[in-house]
Amino acid sequence: MVDASLGEIMTTCEKITWLLSEGEKWLKPEYRSCGRSMIHKTAKVEFHPLGVIGAIVSWNYPFHNIFNPMLAAVFSGNSIVIKVSEHASWSGCFYVRIIQAALAAVGAPENLVEVITGFAETGEALVSSVDKIIFVGSPGVGRMIMRNAADTLIPVTLELGGKDAFIVCEDVDVPHVAQIAVRGALQSSGQNCAGAERFYVHKDVYPAFVAEVVKIVKSITAGPPLLGKYDMGAICMQEHSEKLQSLVNDALDKGAEIAGRGSVGNIAEGAVDQYFPPTVIINVNHTMKLMQEEAFGPIMPIMKFSSDEEAVELANDSKYGLGCAVFSGSQHRAKVIASQIHTGVAAVNDFASTYMCQSLPFGGVKESGFGRFAGIEGLRACCLVKSVVEDRWWPFIKTKIPKPIQYPISENGFKFQESLVEALYGLNMLDRLRALVDVLKMLSEQNTSKGNKRTD
Amino acid sequence: MVDASLGEIMTTCEKITWLLSEGEKWLKPEYRSCGRSMIHKTAKVEFHPLGVIGAIVSWNYPFHNIFNPMLAAVFSGNSIVIKVSEHASWSGCFYVRIIQAALAAVGAPENLVEVITGFAETGEALVSSVDKIIFVGSPGVGRMIMRNAADTLIPVTLELGGKDAFIVCEDVDVPHVAQIAVRGALQSSGQNCAGAERFYVHKDVYPAFVAEVVKIVKSITAGPPLLGKYDMGAICMQEHSEKLQSLVNDALDKGAEIAGRGSVGNIAEGAVDQYFPPTVIINVNHTMKLMQEEAFGPIMPIMKFSSDEEAVELANDSKYGLGCAVFSGSQHRAKVIASQIHTGVAAVNDFASTYMCQSLPFGGVKESGFGRFAGIEGLRACCLVKSVVEDRWWPFIKTKIPKPIQYPISENGFKFQESLVEALYGLNMLDRLRALVDVLKMLSEQNTSKGNKRTD
Repeated sequence: MVDASLGEIMTTCEKITWLLSEGEKWLKPEYRSCGRSMIHKTAKVEFHPLGVIGAIVSWNYPFHNIFNPMLAAVFSGNSIVIKVSEHASWSGCFYVRIIQAALAAVGAPENLVEVITGFAETGEALVSSVDKIIFVGSPGVGRMIMRNAADTLIPVTLELGGKDAFIVCEDVDVPHVAQIAVRGALQSSGQNCAGAERFYVHKDVYPAFVAEVVKIVKSITAGPPLLGKYDMGAICMQEHSEKLQSLVNDALDKGAEIAGRGSVGNIAEGAVDQYFPPTVIINVNHTMKLMQEEAFGPIMPIMKFSSDEEAVELANDSKYGLGCAVFSGSQHRAKVIASQIHTGVAAVNDFASTYMCQSLPFGGVKESGFGRFAGIEGLRACCLVKSVVEDRWWPFIKTKIPKPIQYPISENGFKFQESLVEALYGLNMLDRLRALVDVLKMLSEQNTSKGNKRTD
Repeated sequence: MVDASLGEIMTTCEKITWLLSEGEKWLKPEYRSCGRSMIHKTAKVEFHPLGVIGAIVSWNYPFHNIFNPMLAAVFSGNSIVIKVSEHASWSGCFYVRIIQAALAAVGAPENLVEVITGFAETGEALVSSVDKIIFVGSPGVGRMIMRNAADTLIPVTLELGGKDAFIVCEDVDVPHVAQIAVRGALQSSGQNCAGAERFYVHKDVYPAFVAEVVKIVKSITAGPPLLGKYDMGAICMQEHSEKLQSLVNDALDKGAEIAGRGSVGNIAEGAVDQYFPPTVIINVNHTMKLMQEEAFGPIMPIMKFSSDEEAVELANDSKYGLGCAVFSGSQHRAKVIASQIHTGVAAVNDFASTYMCQSLPFGGVKESGFGRFAGIEGLRACCLVKSVVEDRWWPFIKTKIPKPIQYPISENGFKFQESLVEALYGLNMLDRLRALVDVLKMLSEQNTSKGNKRTD
């Protein structure tokens, strides 16, 4: 329940708060500088709705994953159709009633937001019907969605999970960082796209860190929160427990060791597979699937490093690039390490703090996908970004094509155009002035001869 | 030659000028507001290079289409490999020597920029090898590129041409706008992705506008600029003249009329097909291919409208959405019309002026593609957009997980978390204060009891 409040409610409240306080400001036309030949103009970027946004979202945060795209899409003037995961159909249909009641309360059309349920063919139909698609899920499905989106040439935002590194330097307060590490791994039982999945700890504090993490993890019991006081909840899909166990087994086969495990409460027989004990694994290396594939479960593989360069190298040795967290007593050192890790999100001396700043874009690189939701970037990604230029002092100055390059092109048309480019962009100020004199001379010649006959 | 200077040289100079004057500013970390629970933090967005950018570009501006993606990619710290069109292989290999000489002059690696030539399989190989792909070309090839990019999950910018509307209200200075209209249609012999291809003119000035445009167009002669004084150049691909003629024939079959045509100079026999006389066509409607398909040639179909609503409706009745130009004696009226046209670019009382403001993003919607090059958006689109959060006053304040929700979760863990959300985001100030008192009480209880044992 704490995990849900943190990951579902608090994030959504922060998103609403940010949109209300800053959203309008970032959707207003943004004025830009004018080019050298355009000083009599005003240049701006406008943000118009794209139309109907489609979102295909994962089951892991069934509340927030609906509100997240919905809030940005509707706030920027779009409607949205959200396909929820087949594993979150009931809750999707439940939550949309909150949204539709809110729309009705303000007199907005109720069908501005629709939630649809179904399997792959529903997703395909959605992709072919909207003006933009936001997808939160696996790289495999992300590829299919991008291929389908190519048919209708719609933009795609892909948020495809990660294998986030959590780096601990030797100069940290170990018990403090260990608590954050366990939270980073076990939030939502590890079913967190930006969950910490690879722990790299400096060799000098490695034993202390492992001991502290094991102590914490051993104190944790998984179980159904409505039936008792538990520290961690369920694995959404029973069959996923098998996948988690196979990752653990592969690591053990290759020489890893379980350093400690939490426990699972007294669960009814049929539901046992729904709970996976939090597990700390040491002696891991990058040949193990556990260090390569997204686990999406409460497993903490911890590896040693000797130098900051090695930590960066290990962190970047992944097909994913969503987030990372770096801890050091020296904030500068943590920042230097974080800046070298090729991810879309980085927390310095904290975990997932970027997501609690909803002014910031969220998204990754490599197999973690591309495009951004949340933040200014995410809001504007729901928009038709439109460049507009108009005259500044209308009606006194009008844009006219200079006479020498009006049709039919004058004898000196190219010379005029050459001089114009030199006058505007020449590297040498004297050459520019000389070219400007030529431009003005050619203009005045034209005005006194054939030029007049063209505008009568 | 005037067209080349305008479209190739002047645009490139403006792009370089803008990058030098503002590029660095827009690539610096951008600070953002912090969330309510993050007031002790600093939030920023950093712009890191993506790695290797790939660009597959069209033949119509063989110089600018190389410099455009190259400048943005290299300025933002990337390397770039550009596949030029098979119709511009010679010039591509020529221009890259300028670039590599410039790189050598500043001691940069010469292979930071590579130009490659070839056919579809070269393009495919490029897509599969880079971290981002920028494509300028047709919707058909754009689809293929997006499908291929799905395999490696790289972001795509697609600039796929357009069928831009040019709207003329009855309150304009007709001869002035007619000159701009002809330039908008005939620039680069119409081989211009943002060329004006559909002219909508208010019925009250329609006869005058058509007469003026016909007068101008009849004065125009197409021919090879190195062999004489001509007003318009060649059609790049001989076979494209047939496509242009078939669009004209389809329109004529459906009731259109040629109102006037320019002429073609004395061209050597074998090269006649390379020149297409500029052609004004009236009595057109949207059933004709000429009003639906991108012509990419010097054809000006002109249609009447009676109301601003009709003009907007006609302009939006297209599968493309790249640009538009709207002319009215009332700038406000022109702006209102332009704001309703679903395109990525709009010029008010001018043509293509947005491209001479390189601070502005360039790109379209619908079959014109998505993503933006040029401007702040285009520059940042070559970057890994990275959200970073760090502590503000290190080392005095450290982020700690509040005791009640440290593992193992306290009895009152959920109550604490609920109160925290209420204190931060409650709608009512009194409720928020009450919740804050609860939060502080629970924190102090924890500190004096079991809390201490967790941080020793």
